[in-house]
Amino acid sequence: MERTLTDVMLRRERVTSASGGEPVVHCEALVTETTSAPEFIDITEDVERIVADSGAGSGQATVFSGHTTAAIKVNENEPLLLQDLARIISQIAPVHGEYEHNDFSRRTVNMDEEECANGHAHCQHLFLSTSETIPIIDGRLALGQWQRIFLVELDRPRQRRVLVNVVGVR
Amino acid sequence: MERTLTDVMLRRERVTSASGGEPVVHCEALVTETTSAPEFIDITEDVERIVADSGAGSGQATVFSGHTTAAIKVNENEPLLLQDLARIISQIAPVHGEYEHNDFSRRTVNMDEEECANGHAHCQHLFLSTSETIPIIDGRLALGQWQRIFLVELDRPRQRRVLVNVVGVR
Amino acid sequence: MERTLTDVMLRRERVTSASGGEPVVHCEALVTETTSAPEFIDITEDVERIVADSGAGSGQATVFSGHTTAAIKVNENEPLLLQDLARIISQIAPVHGEYEHNDFSRRTVNMDEEECANGHAHCQHLFLSTSETIPIIDGRLALGQWQRIFLVELDRPRQRRVLVNVVGVR
Repeated sequence: MERTLTDVMLRRERVTSASGGEPVVHCEALVTETTSAPEFIDITEDVERIVADSGAGSGQATVFSGHTTAAIKVNENEPLLLQDLARIISQIAPVHGEYEHNDFSRRTVNMDEEECANGHAHCQHLFLSTSETIPIIDGRLALGQWQRIFLVELDRPRQRRVLVNVVGVR
Repeated sequence: MERTLTDVMLRRERVTSASGGEPVVHCEALVTETTSAPEFIDITEDVERIVADSGAGSGQATVFSGHTTAAIKVNENEPLLLQDLARIISQIAPVHGEYEHNDFSRRTVNMDEEECANGHAHCQHLFLSTSETIPIIDGRLALGQWQRIFLVELDRPRQRRVLVNVVGVR
Repeated sequence: MERTLTDVMLRRERVTSASGGEPVVHCEALVTETTSAPEFIDITEDVERIVADSGAGSGQATVFSGHTTAAIKVNENEPLLLQDLARIISQIAPVHGEYEHNDFSRRTVNMDEEECANGHAHCQHLFLSTSETIPIIDGRLALGQWQRIFLVELDRPRQRRVLVNVVGVR
């Protein structure tokens, strides 16, 4: 079968199929204190443990950041690479750039007692993801060889809360 | 337990767990006429209402844009910040930049009667998301304090259709 | 009902609702050999076929790349546009740029026998998605008129594996 643009062939492989199983919905939070920005916190093992405890044999896990200045990303956990990623993120929207959101003389909306100038963190978040959804096969995350799940802190160090929401069947 | 890169501790908190409940799948569309670009339309309350009417106590809602030049994003609804985000989006792929997609003298594929030069909107969309998936806890979207769901218009004003697809248990 | 920023009206349309149906979870892999980078491989028809064979009448399909240097994106399949998208991707993180990840004199982690200098591909992936989740309505992907699903190769040609994970009800 021909593919557009390139004559790439695609081969289908059956992985798993469960029909009529007992539905499972299971949600836990991961709470952490971040220490800098941009910071990559590898939460893969913790997510894997929650998936195992959920009792779901197949389905999916959505890893969701409850924050507008902390993101979820899947990439490789290689320390030099994480330096590259941090540099690229900081270039898109530099911490010392000009942001209307940081103009507290004009801003009236969502002004918090601890409000900090964090326009750069919101703008960096625009290009990243609030969540990632990962298939569950045989009760485990179906991650590829190099894939790790990161919470990415973009703002100043603070407490962060990530939801791990499993939807599937036993 | 030590984390890579930083010695961040992660604490687990049980949120909700439902096993054996009655499965719920519920889908509605939100239809709107946009007015400019980039434009951020806050659809959070409408999505929240659909989730409430779905009857799902837990599970997740996927908010899906049916368009290649309108995106879904979760961020803060602060008017000055939305100006920052609009500026950043316009810088990635400027409306008056050069795009092969706009060369109607050479283009033969997907030529519509109302075809407009919108290469910039497709290129901006490359960095944004077609959908966002949000956990449902106790029949409500589990959004953090500042999180709001936006339909982001990148192209000329027109009718747009967003699907809100709930998958969970009663 | 008024919307923030613009007085946009949103109209709700019921699409589908299934309660108490038999749960379906179905997962297949699509395996392919890519040929260049950046390369867009349109996998829409193959995903559509897997959804049809899953037996799910409603729910959702998550299309998941098992790789840190190959992404999933939904956009239009117009050949000139794909040239624009490839150019923009190559500009974010150029193949001949400087990446710490490529410094094999210092790097000690995740060194593979076939290790290649691919820092650019990881950095490009930061802005793209590992997965996309698409609603299923009446047993079919609920894609808009111009939406096509692409596997995007960012690294050298190689074998790639995409999971299509359906969660829904019969």
